[in-house]
Amino acid sequence: MGLKTRHDYLKALRELKPNIYKFGELIKDVTTHPATKRTVESHCRSFDASHDPEWADLYTTTSFFTGEVIHRWNSMMQSSDDLINNMKLKRQNYRRTGTCSGAVCVGWNAQNTLWAVTKEIDKEFGTDYQERLKNWILHAQEEGLTVAGALTDAKGDRSLKPSQQADPDVHLRIKEVREDGIIIHGAKLMICGTAASQEIFLLPGGIYKEEDSDFALACVVPRDIDGLTIIEATRPSDRRDLEETSEAEVPNTGITQGLLLFEEVFVPNERVFMCGEAKYTAKFIQYFTANYRACIGACVSGQGDVMVGASVLMARANGLSAKTFTNKLVDMSINNQITYGLGAGACAMGFKHASGSFFADPITAHTNKVMVATLPYETKRLTQEIGGGIVETGCMPSYQDFTNPQYGELLQKYYKAGSASADARYKAARLSEWLTIGGGVPGCMHGGGSPDGARLVVRFSTPFEEYAEYAKTIMGIDEDVQEPQKIK
Amino acid sequence: MGLKTRHDYLKALRELKPNIYKFGELIKDVTTHPATKRTVESHCRSFDASHDPEWADLYTTTSFFTGEVIHRWNSMMQSSDDLINNMKLKRQNYRRTGTCSGAVCVGWNAQNTLWAVTKEIDKEFGTDYQERLKNWILHAQEEGLTVAGALTDAKGDRSLKPSQQADPDVHLRIKEVREDGIIIHGAKLMICGTAASQEIFLLPGGIYKEEDSDFALACVVPRDIDGLTIIEATRPSDRRDLEETSEAEVPNTGITQGLLLFEEVFVPNERVFMCGEAKYTAKFIQYFTANYRACIGACVSGQGDVMVGASVLMARANGLSAKTFTNKLVDMSINNQITYGLGAGACAMGFKHASGSFFADPITAHTNKVMVATLPYETKRLTQEIGGGIVETGCMPSYQDFTNPQYGELLQKYYKAGSASADARYKAARLSEWLTIGGGVPGCMHGGGSPDGARLVVRFSTPFEEYAEYAKTIMGIDEDVQEPQKIK
Amino acid sequence: MGLKTRHDYLKALRELKPNIYKFGELIKDVTTHPATKRTVESHCRSFDASHDPEWADLYTTTSFFTGEVIHRWNSMMQSSDDLINNMKLKRQNYRRTGTCSGAVCVGWNAQNTLWAVTKEIDKEFGTDYQERLKNWILHAQEEGLTVAGALTDAKGDRSLKPSQQADPDVHLRIKEVREDGIIIHGAKLMICGTAASQEIFLLPGGIYKEEDSDFALACVVPRDIDGLTIIEATRPSDRRDLEETSEAEVPNTGITQGLLLFEEVFVPNERVFMCGEAKYTAKFIQYFTANYRACIGACVSGQGDVMVGASVLMARANGLSAKTFTNKLVDMSINNQITYGLGAGACAMGFKHASGSFFADPITAHTNKVMVATLPYETKRLTQEIGGGIVETGCMPSYQDFTNPQYGELLQKYYKAGSASADARYKAARLSEWLTIGGGVPGCMHGGGSPDGARLVVRFSTPFEEYAEYAKTIMGIDEDVQEPQKIK
Amino acid sequence: MGLKTRHDYLKALRELKPNIYKFGELIKDVTTHPATKRTVESHCRSFDASHDPEWADLYTTTSFFTGEVIHRWNSMMQSSDDLINNMKLKRQNYRRTGTCSGAVCVGWNAQNTLWAVTKEIDKEFGTDYQERLKNWILHAQEEGLTVAGALTDAKGDRSLKPSQQADPDVHLRIKEVREDGIIIHGAKLMICGTAASQEIFLLPGGIYKEEDSDFALACVVPRDIDGLTIIEATRPSDRRDLEETSEAEVPNTGITQGLLLFEEVFVPNERVFMCGEAKYTAKFIQYFTANYRACIGACVSGQGDVMVGASVLMARANGLSAKTFTNKLVDMSINNQITYGLGAGACAMGFKHASGSFFADPITAHTNKVMVATLPYETKRLTQEIGGGIVETGCMPSYQDFTNPQYGELLQKYYKAGSASADARYKAARLSEWLTIGGGVPGCMHGGGSPDGARLVVRFSTPFEEYAEYAKTIMGIDEDVQEPQKIK
Repeated sequence: MGLKTRHDYLKALRELKPNIYKFGELIKDVTTHPATKRTVESHCRSFDASHDPEWADLYTTTSFFTGEVIHRWNSMMQSSDDLINNMKLKRQNYRRTGTCSGAVCVGWNAQNTLWAVTKEIDKEFGTDYQERLKNWILHAQEEGLTVAGALTDAKGDRSLKPSQQADPDVHLRIKEVREDGIIIHGAKLMICGTAASQEIFLLPGGIYKEEDSDFALACVVPRDIDGLTIIEATRPSDRRDLEETSEAEVPNTGITQGLLLFEEVFVPNERVFMCGEAKYTAKFIQYFTANYRACIGACVSGQGDVMVGASVLMARANGLSAKTFTNKLVDMSINNQITYGLGAGACAMGFKHASGSFFADPITAHTNKVMVATLPYETKRLTQEIGGGIVETGCMPSYQDFTNPQYGELLQKYYKAGSASADARYKAARLSEWLTIGGGVPGCMHGGGSPDGARLVVRFSTPFEEYAEYAKTIMGIDEDVQEPQKIK
Repeated sequence: MGLKTRHDYLKALRELKPNIYKFGELIKDVTTHPATKRTVESHCRSFDASHDPEWADLYTTTSFFTGEVIHRWNSMMQSSDDLINNMKLKRQNYRRTGTCSGAVCVGWNAQNTLWAVTKEIDKEFGTDYQERLKNWILHAQEEGLTVAGALTDAKGDRSLKPSQQADPDVHLRIKEVREDGIIIHGAKLMICGTAASQEIFLLPGGIYKEEDSDFALACVVPRDIDGLTIIEATRPSDRRDLEETSEAEVPNTGITQGLLLFEEVFVPNERVFMCGEAKYTAKFIQYFTANYRACIGACVSGQGDVMVGASVLMARANGLSAKTFTNKLVDMSINNQITYGLGAGACAMGFKHASGSFFADPITAHTNKVMVATLPYETKRLTQEIGGGIVETGCMPSYQDFTNPQYGELLQKYYKAGSASADARYKAARLSEWLTIGGGVPGCMHGGGSPDGARLVVRFSTPFEEYAEYAKTIMGIDEDVQEPQKIK
Repeated sequence: MGLKTRHDYLKALRELKPNIYKFGELIKDVTTHPATKRTVESHCRSFDASHDPEWADLYTTTSFFTGEVIHRWNSMMQSSDDLINNMKLKRQNYRRTGTCSGAVCVGWNAQNTLWAVTKEIDKEFGTDYQERLKNWILHAQEEGLTVAGALTDAKGDRSLKPSQQADPDVHLRIKEVREDGIIIHGAKLMICGTAASQEIFLLPGGIYKEEDSDFALACVVPRDIDGLTIIEATRPSDRRDLEETSEAEVPNTGITQGLLLFEEVFVPNERVFMCGEAKYTAKFIQYFTANYRACIGACVSGQGDVMVGASVLMARANGLSAKTFTNKLVDMSINNQITYGLGAGACAMGFKHASGSFFADPITAHTNKVMVATLPYETKRLTQEIGGGIVETGCMPSYQDFTNPQYGELLQKYYKAGSASADARYKAARLSEWLTIGGGVPGCMHGGGSPDGARLVVRFSTPFEEYAEYAKTIMGIDEDVQEPQKIK
Repeated sequence: MGLKTRHDYLKALRELKPNIYKFGELIKDVTTHPATKRTVESHCRSFDASHDPEWADLYTTTSFFTGEVIHRWNSMMQSSDDLINNMKLKRQNYRRTGTCSGAVCVGWNAQNTLWAVTKEIDKEFGTDYQERLKNWILHAQEEGLTVAGALTDAKGDRSLKPSQQADPDVHLRIKEVREDGIIIHGAKLMICGTAASQEIFLLPGGIYKEEDSDFALACVVPRDIDGLTIIEATRPSDRRDLEETSEAEVPNTGITQGLLLFEEVFVPNERVFMCGEAKYTAKFIQYFTANYRACIGACVSGQGDVMVGASVLMARANGLSAKTFTNKLVDMSINNQITYGLGAGACAMGFKHASGSFFADPITAHTNKVMVATLPYETKRLTQEIGGGIVETGCMPSYQDFTNPQYGELLQKYYKAGSASADARYKAARLSEWLTIGGGVPGCMHGGGSPDGARLVVRFSTPFEEYAEYAKTIMGIDEDVQEPQKIK
């Protein structure tokens, strides 16, 4: 039965072998360690929603394969509505957690993208990748897995191809092909949601040619697979998460990124979905990014909703009516709706792949990526403008000081503004701070790839010559107007 | 048979009784008069496309009522795909004409909106408006009509309701209800596409209460109905259209706005679809604007495409490679795709009315209206930046001078830059000028209503209190944080 | 005595030999011809202000050479205060006329720039250019001349240098050097203020090397010099200026651009200030653009002030309180103050040349040019947003129709909104239209050179390596971090 | 002798009585405690620069009173050049430290503002405040003091005046006036540079009326005065500063804010410069903010310079040429120059007060404040865009992990990109992170007051009616066009 509860999920995480480190220390239990418990809690809320009558329709669906009820994040996406439901779930996740839930996001996208790519590979090479993938999907649906996804390689010297690098490990690679599986070696960096995941998709980090076929690799591994060491990345503000007083200073939710170090890791064949077919990395990247960059608009709009809410709260905690800031709040809402609506537009204008998978319209999806890397910054700026000085750069005492026996009472007296308590104002300010300059800031700039990469897709998707012909027709210009010839 | 040709259309226009004036003169034949022939040509291109194998799928469809092939602009829109096809047609129209084709746009939207509203009215009041409308739609489909739509009233004193105005005529009104029809009186201002239309929908210009029921009026009239006088508005640059040399200075296409003066005009019952049911004006405005403001994103993106094309052309005519301006061209393409994709998103997230009509998601549609009133200005700015000084403020001689026997040859010598002829460069520069500061500038700011009106819808569609609750939950704030109490 | 009146000025213009054409016709008297009388009126207002007790301090000053009272636009600028007064005069000119007064602007800048450049040339080459220039300045001050300035050449193929062009005439050139003067031949295009000028400075249009020394040319000529033919450029909307009803549709003021065709024109030595000294064209361009692009911020801010005023007027004419638009009006005022204040900052941080001339800080001046090419577009957008649909795309009848005996009264009835008359509303709407999409739109994009050119100066003025060193010092990075080596 | 060295300054700080707390702990020595040593180091660099031949001209000047050489931050500002030198020093301070040096900034501005205000008060009330102030300035110049300044009160309920508050202490107040001095009580919040200061100016936090005269208070106190307790505010990321590995993760420099709790503090008369003269609080705020908001443009431009430098560094550390990002780097440079140049413009157009003090032009200064609260956000966004994912949200391991014996070497292998070492890349990424989402983010939004406050000044400084008159004159509208009358 594919629907799991928060309890089941926590139990499953605790059963994984500890292999995550932070600040030089092995995290024994990700569900309770202060460095990881918040992101686990974020993901728990998706399990809660799956059983919440108000939200079950969105968070669950029926399996395309078995017809059974499953978590939506384990499902196949085969129509624009499926994609839009992905977006709805993402926006709602952000509204519940204020941040990213990477382990119910990237793996989902990966399985659907690979569904199409494996079909193409199988067709050309007679492989059975799609069948393998189907089996794994059935397992994931059955277990209600949370699955992270890893694309980004270390990359080394950006001017060289993977096979040209001094150190071949700077891209995760197939080191050996055995009869029963493959040995992989290398690293994946800044992978979102790792600590909350049960399994991890390993995916091509770029578009490769034949000479780089050792790096054309897709598979899925348990998070605690032998030979994998995970180092949690640190954000500027995450030491605060570790303190006893952290409850007053940071939310109960969160996201973390992990660095995955693979040392001679064996992956059995049934979990391998691409193994050297370099020419299909282009398809993978194209399909994956189209859906990812369409749907990421929902993420930043959901976080924007929380920024709107935090700003309303903060205005009132400051003793002001939220109406004072109507123009700014409406601008924030417009920013949110742009990335959300543009994402939905990309989904609506997408195309159905022969495999059944559905993919978003590339030019619209990549246009959205540029907006996703732009508008949230303005929304954050407005959050800081509305919140006032105590929000902007954390001009508040630590909670240790705020509750210090010697002068804490005095501080609290001075931090009371409107009818809200000093404590509520303190927390509200910390929330706006967290959302705009703390741990809640999502990776909307480079997450899912850079905006310059997206601009490149827009460039190659825009039919400039066709447009020039329209201009000529409208004005009645018959003459051929050409690019100037290069002077040698 | 509902499919008409350019020839049929021109013939039909010529058969209408002349009632359009400009510069104090009665226009005898709109199809040949220089003040109107360009907008007629713009609409002709929609008839052409209906018979063009490449475009017929988009420009035609089958009638929901009869199953016959009809022009798409006479069809019912009953799904998100129907709405998105409306957008596609609009974008393509702009690409072909560089400007608006109002008479294959507003009437189409009106008939679909009224289809829903009449159903609601009929249900409450037992009227037979929807049946009347159906009969008219069958007629329109049969004749392949071009139909303008008129909402904007003169409005008089903006602080007073229609019934409070010193002059009751400042809103078009029902002056008398007869057994066989109604007498209407007043005016509709700045109505797009009138000169190219065969019929005109008259629609409520605002949301009215009971006391203003005389103004709650929807009907459709032939463009040459008795008692209707039309004055063509003038743009700053349209005197140029009248000159003999106009072919070199302005495109063959165009759009015009008309001012409709109704003096005791009789409309028979079968053409009346709302007559005093004031409370349904709100529904009309809500449904109409949702679809209009979703789809208008396609208009400005289509014109943006032409600006991209004109800029490519202009760069080359200046002797430069279009690649010099890649960043700017990509920014323009992104602007275009934002309003287009956001419109598609509004369509995709719309809702189906009990009548079968489909309407776009309001908050997304109105968000798009704000973008439509913003981004094209930046696209125009970039068009002028790429085009150079001769584009920006028309720093070129008139074509009379350009071809003057005394000094024209000298001028042409100096206007040649790259491999293009001086004539091609002249025309290309005039096109960019026309698109950015001439007759090609569309009414994207206030057409379909003001952006401030759209912001109001965004404001009332954003659930601020719900968002504040999300913020509280995320931060674990249990306390009620309230609006400050007003001090009396 | 250097102070002239409007009357003196008009008389002087009338005494010039007619050599200006428009629409194929020779303009006999620029002071009365409808194509040029408005720009002449604009310039008249500077003479008026010179005698207005409220403004005389700004519009006049004392001659550095003679100590006599002169028009400020004939003066030497030798301090940052002199430059800022140039800006103040420009802002005030725009406020009075709504547009540019090119003949009391470019010549002024030219004489001051050449004052510095001739000193440098004389020092190297032992020429007496500065002395010649001084004599001419004394003459200009004595006569209170209006002096246009012409930089822009036809340019031909942008990828070739002047001497490489198929047609050498596409840059104005020294065709022959005689003992008593030079013969020049070629053209200058889109020269602002020509029709209102008495003399014209001819200036280098680019930075040239030795091989292009024939194009390194600076001199000043009477506007009606033998061999010069001027063609007035046409804007999209200027046919309207010629009509009998033009007073209701366009302001009394204006600006025009002229195309100057030089055919074997003799310029006597005493009016020649650079003749082949190619290396000094770089200095000329550098100094000239620094001052021009600093001060142009005042122009667009002055026009912005009028847009603010027109918007206040328009709001009221529409029957609304200007307070409805406070946020937008404040944004407009901020835009105005940015370009003005940034210009003043460039002046304040400028430098004094050994000749006594004072020049603005280049990086700040060129930054301002980028703003000048950006912010006014947003201010115009806001003007259209506030003004409503009748402002945006000229959705108004022509004045012929507005006053037509048959239906004019009816139109006027419908165009009345608030307490203002229909006529006042009509004119107010025409003004906003003229400012944003009509003849009042200034050439802020390319006037004084392109923003991309300005960005280039910013690029070369920013000490990137020095800034990288700051970053290293702050972070304690000792290592040398280098540009990647090019791979061959 | 007024010039002190880094050594003198550190010694002076160590001699102050410890009264600063953070995280519940008393900081015994601000010069060595990791929570404060970085901001002290920032200020040390100003002393270093005062003795650096390259910079001494900027960092020192001669005393207006004694003619002796003093630190510039102790000087009187009596001309626009003095103000611009204030800006130059601020920009340079940011370039050296990456952040704010509040203790050589606010006190300096305060003494100059009070110089003017005390003259006005003395004139009306016959007091001797200016003489007292002069004596204190002589002392400050003699000792080369670093002086913070404190305006912001706790404020309590924003809808009530100070005297109406339930708790009168929420604004710092004069509790008792004694013959030899006053007793003050209350708090000042989020005061920048406190920990690095030797003395602190206490200044009016708002504009008060007579009934609030107890809050009209200006004086200067030693930082360790009896009855003053200071709590250091915490930023989201400052726990990192306390760690042993902090040198690799954060710069050596920094800024902190303090919360000042005054309990019955006695201030002797010679240090009191305003004591109840409520009507002069308006003048104080007006003069103070004009200079502060003009000059703050230099701060953000200086930090922007470091962001440019960090971005160049980061591009190279990523193995890319900085040229890849030329457009973005130029945009950043333009942003920097806007706030700097606009500030200089405000200074250049300022006015000289009868006291000799010089104040910036209000509308330009407040326009700049709006830019200061906007442009740096875009500059930060670009810094993150150029830097890549590792910069954006700190997707890097902690330095403890980076150097961990078990897996540190592996991490370093994967963090090497171009020719720079992994360590240099790590530090460069941390710097960009620190500048954009860490402790280096300056309080440019609300520091020196909110942008909405600045917009209010712009609003009241813009002569809307005068501008409407210009519009009328240009268009020849004679009629009076009025605001609509309010309907009762």
